[in-house]
Amino acid sequence: MSGSRNSTVAVELAVAERNVEQLPFVNDKHGGVIIEMVTPMDPGVFSASLKAALTKWREQGIRGVWIKLPITLSNLITPAVEEGFWYHHAEETYLMLAYWLPNTTHTLPVNATHRVGIGAFIMNDKREVLAVQEKSGVLRGLGVWKFPTGVVEPGEDINVGAVREVKEETGIDAEFVEVLAFRQSHKAFFDKSDLFFVCLLRPLSYDITKQDSEIEACQWMPVEEFAAQPFLQKHEIAKYTLEVGLAKVDKEYAGFSPISIKSAFTDKLSFFYVNRRDLDKASGSSN
Amino acid sequence: MSGSRNSTVAVELAVAERNVEQLPFVNDKHGGVIIEMVTPMDPGVFSASLKAALTKWREQGIRGVWIKLPITLSNLITPAVEEGFWYHHAEETYLMLAYWLPNTTHTLPVNATHRVGIGAFIMNDKREVLAVQEKSGVLRGLGVWKFPTGVVEPGEDINVGAVREVKEETGIDAEFVEVLAFRQSHKAFFDKSDLFFVCLLRPLSYDITKQDSEIEACQWMPVEEFAAQPFLQKHEIAKYTLEVGLAKVDKEYAGFSPISIKSAFTDKLSFFYVNRRDLDKASGSSN
Repeated sequence: MSGSRNSTVAVELAVAERNVEQLPFVNDKHGGVIIEMVTPMDPGVFSASLKAALTKWREQGIRGVWIKLPITLSNLITPAVEEGFWYHHAEETYLMLAYWLPNTTHTLPVNATHRVGIGAFIMNDKREVLAVQEKSGVLRGLGVWKFPTGVVEPGEDINVGAVREVKEETGIDAEFVEVLAFRQSHKAFFDKSDLFFVCLLRPLSYDITKQDSEIEACQWMPVEEFAAQPFLQKHEIAKYTLEVGLAKVDKEYAGFSPISIKSAFTDKLSFFYVNRRDLDKASGSSN
Repeated sequence: MSGSRNSTVAVELAVAERNVEQLPFVNDKHGGVIIEMVTPMDPGVFSASLKAALTKWREQGIRGVWIKLPITLSNLITPAVEEGFWYHHAEETYLMLAYWLPNTTHTLPVNATHRVGIGAFIMNDKREVLAVQEKSGVLRGLGVWKFPTGVVEPGEDINVGAVREVKEETGIDAEFVEVLAFRQSHKAFFDKSDLFFVCLLRPLSYDITKQDSEIEACQWMPVEEFAAQPFLQKHEIAKYTLEVGLAKVDKEYAGFSPISIKSAFTDKLSFFYVNRRDLDKASGSSN
């Protein structure tokens, strides 16, 4: 017991003799700390400073330790890995490393696993759907007309992303109505998964201005003509999108529509997508 | 000037003669290549080999270049960054870097932006809901009873993850019925977003065996008692979960249920979640 304490002291003394600097960190809300490196540091100094900080934090009962390293400081990754850090996630300009000090299984949040895409069903009063041919992708050059699709941007709401993608690809202004269905698929890119939301939008303008970089052609297409494409028979997601779109505009199909709700802890607003028609009916009939 | 140029050429020639190795790569389906490093390499040799490979690939019209580096080879990150590579994504044991050779905006897939969570509404024949108190998190120690929640694992289907989480936390076997609603929120952890699916499950067993590591207490709780908790008034997501759950079991609320569909291009199966009741009604009435 006392021997282990002595050796800790010895390590601290040895570290103190070398060039140890205070690393820039903040405490997080979960009993951990986040080191956010901004300016360059000699890898040897970084290594010694990290060792010293970990020793201190372990004694203080700190749990998770994060290191955010900008891509310009990639030379500090190896020293962190040598201290036992692993990769948590990375974005274009930084790498986040993580370490768990207690002798227990870590409870750090998992990395993001899904990207989120949207497909838009939009029909005008003449029963024409907004259809595009893409310049790239698996359907390129096949003359296939498909619904506009896209990927939501980091931090973007699904209902906002759907309207944005339609505007960008076709020039059409539209209003978000409902999520009609969604698909979850795996290994969409490397080991990551994909959630694809089929959205019903209502057109607010009709003159097409197609995006040149991604879109080969764009038109308002009679829905029967769209539906007659042989491609739909093989492509179940497009076939179902058409089916739920028509069930919505012609029949009594109810999708999920967004309600703005507030987090109890942060006051942040977010969208809750729910079958509003049935929910209103249920609360109406119980009142 | 010419002297400096000559010496650069001389160095390059020397490098080419002695220190360039063939990097292990495969072609991808999008006109790009993936370098997958497995064994250690001297950073200088890696740098020279990467330079030579990029020159060759640019001439060949290759577009995207990926480098997958295991965490054990973190010393090769800086040489790659120096060649212009950026971080694409990282998992615990590797970093994926990316580079775009053409003089155009890249069309590489975006990184994953969302993690996916589930909350489970489960009621037995006595109108008791399955409720838990958690050992960690913001509600710890407050005596609040909540619905079982969890995060789906990488590559796991939502309907499978919901059943697994309930089993792990409570010992209850259950069958997945429907997604009743979902919430999208941002900045859930660092800059990443969260998709939370409210699921209705049907219990197949009733004897509770709670998970000791995460769950403080677990019970079948009369739904009126659950609903009377003051916490629900502030916590809109829990309030709505209760509301849609009751609308489903007592009224005519329709959520989205999973249908297995096939990709036209890969034959992979995935789940399409759709308002099956309304869709069946729509196709029935049109036939």
